[in-house]
Amino acid sequence: MSDTQIFDRVAIIGIGLIGSSVALALRANGLAGHVACHDADADVRARADALDIVDSMHADIAGAVDGADLVVVATPVGACGAVAEAMGAHLKPGAIVTDVGSVKGSVITAMTPHIPEGVHLVPGHPVAGTEHSGPESGFADLFQNRFSILTPPPGANADAVATLSRLWQGMGSDVEVMDAEHHDRVLAITSHLPHLIAYTIVGTAADLETELEAQPRDDEVVTTREVIKYSAGGFRDFTRIAASDPVMWRDVFLLNKDAVLEMVGRFTEDMTALQSAIHDDDGDALFELFSRTRDIRRGVIEARQAGRFQYTENGKQSDDDGEEGDA
Amino acid sequence: MSDTQIFDRVAIIGIGLIGSSVALALRANGLAGHVACHDADADVRARADALDIVDSMHADIAGAVDGADLVVVATPVGACGAVAEAMGAHLKPGAIVTDVGSVKGSVITAMTPHIPEGVHLVPGHPVAGTEHSGPESGFADLFQNRFSILTPPPGANADAVATLSRLWQGMGSDVEVMDAEHHDRVLAITSHLPHLIAYTIVGTAADLETELEAQPRDDEVVTTREVIKYSAGGFRDFTRIAASDPVMWRDVFLLNKDAVLEMVGRFTEDMTALQSAIHDDDGDALFELFSRTRDIRRGVIEARQAGRFQYTENGKQSDDDGEEGDA
Repeated sequence: MSDTQIFDRVAIIGIGLIGSSVALALRANGLAGHVACHDADADVRARADALDIVDSMHADIAGAVDGADLVVVATPVGACGAVAEAMGAHLKPGAIVTDVGSVKGSVITAMTPHIPEGVHLVPGHPVAGTEHSGPESGFADLFQNRFSILTPPPGANADAVATLSRLWQGMGSDVEVMDAEHHDRVLAITSHLPHLIAYTIVGTAADLETELEAQPRDDEVVTTREVIKYSAGGFRDFTRIAASDPVMWRDVFLLNKDAVLEMVGRFTEDMTALQSAIHDDDGDALFELFSRTRDIRRGVIEARQAGRFQYTENGKQSDDDGEEGDA
Repeated sequence: MSDTQIFDRVAIIGIGLIGSSVALALRANGLAGHVACHDADADVRARADALDIVDSMHADIAGAVDGADLVVVATPVGACGAVAEAMGAHLKPGAIVTDVGSVKGSVITAMTPHIPEGVHLVPGHPVAGTEHSGPESGFADLFQNRFSILTPPPGANADAVATLSRLWQGMGSDVEVMDAEHHDRVLAITSHLPHLIAYTIVGTAADLETELEAQPRDDEVVTTREVIKYSAGGFRDFTRIAASDPVMWRDVFLLNKDAVLEMVGRFTEDMTALQSAIHDDDGDALFELFSRTRDIRRGVIEARQAGRFQYTENGKQSDDDGEEGDA
């Protein structure tokens, strides 16, 4: 056993982007003696096997969690309840069960009834990812310098929370503990609403071509080809997050419904106000808002949450995500 | 005169991000014999002078355009009319006047009356930029592999259009010619609406803290600090473009009002439909849209409009803008 090892045996349920990144991060940092894995999809199991990123692959969930000290559920959040039900009876007494979902309240509600006494449920959420999916997309550094949030239910085992915190820190994350309801509100504005907006505008743009096809005047038709061609003007920033996994995001919106709908409501109100300002030629209102939002960006950069990329092509380096694109 | 030189004397009016990048690109590619410059702001003139990016700096616009074969107006679009009025009488017969604004129809309307006969107005728009402003932000490669759109009014001088096309190509751009009205519709969806949305959501997030301050329950308050902290979940993609120049963008929205309001209307309708789908637990509708939008992203990547950055910190390279961030 290495100095860094925290768990003898870890089971990962679901080996997509996050599951495979956890597997790689555990290995890279020597945090687990053995990493077992189950995925419900035989094709995904075969692909993950070919990548050699886990120590054992199991077609049955019972085989994967058997003897595991930690089980990491990395499926879309809508599947967490069924996973807990399927594995509940096979969990080792004293084991920790966690997940990586973007919604926490409904995950706790769905999983708790199936977790046997003596097993510690400590839900979690690493705020990290890419728009790519599947076991091929994972990488060991995904969680480096990102926040991982733990949302232990009231009365959760303090040792289990501390051990899981050490694990995420071992994978490079800063760990924060908060209650599930608060997590779901924070993520509704910082992640869920941005994704919903991105999906919407990309859909709006795609529809322009078809909707206007019947129009008599050619110059009114904006084609998808044109939208793509001139996307450097700002649109492409939205296409990236609108390429994220459809099942994962369907589940997030349905399972964090209240907080998401509240944030959508606030956003729509603000959008309507700006619409009126444009309509009424109220340049001062526009200028005031546009000046205020710059400060937030400054905060993002100072908090070093703006990405960790270097602009390499023209030798100009950037301290933020460095993308060019406005126009 | 070098082999590459296209104009003896170019005047740049307004030396912000785009003006300074044009100056640097002209010099780097040997496209102009002399680059003269005027900026209405004495402080900006002094800063640009200190950077040594133009050959002569003029406090008066007449001095800058005197004898110029090409004048590039690189001010916020709202100032184009006044600039044309101020310089009109001093323009050299046969000179070309262009601009770099994100709106074309209203720029043509504002400038045309002040352009003397024998001077060729060929408005343009390089679809490139960053969220940074001022002469310090410019770089010679800004237009490399980006589209520059020219919108010559009906009856424009064909030689002038061809010469200006060669100039943009000399700075690394692909040139497209289209009519101003079509440009304004295309940019309304690919650039103006994305910016408006980004400004809106960043404002919505900033307001959450203040609006909820009076709430009795602490866990309902989402602070700006938290929004920034967990911005890697998607939000930070919006903060970048919401940091763009407030004056430039105020002018864009006011001067492309009709097309912007049309696109806002379409977007709001689509957003309302998604809101209803979430409200009604219609997972199929969400899944269908989320799958469709992935194809657009694929198009953006294939068109190589997704940015030109390499993920350097963990050695993982990316063929697109490579940002991580979803959660």
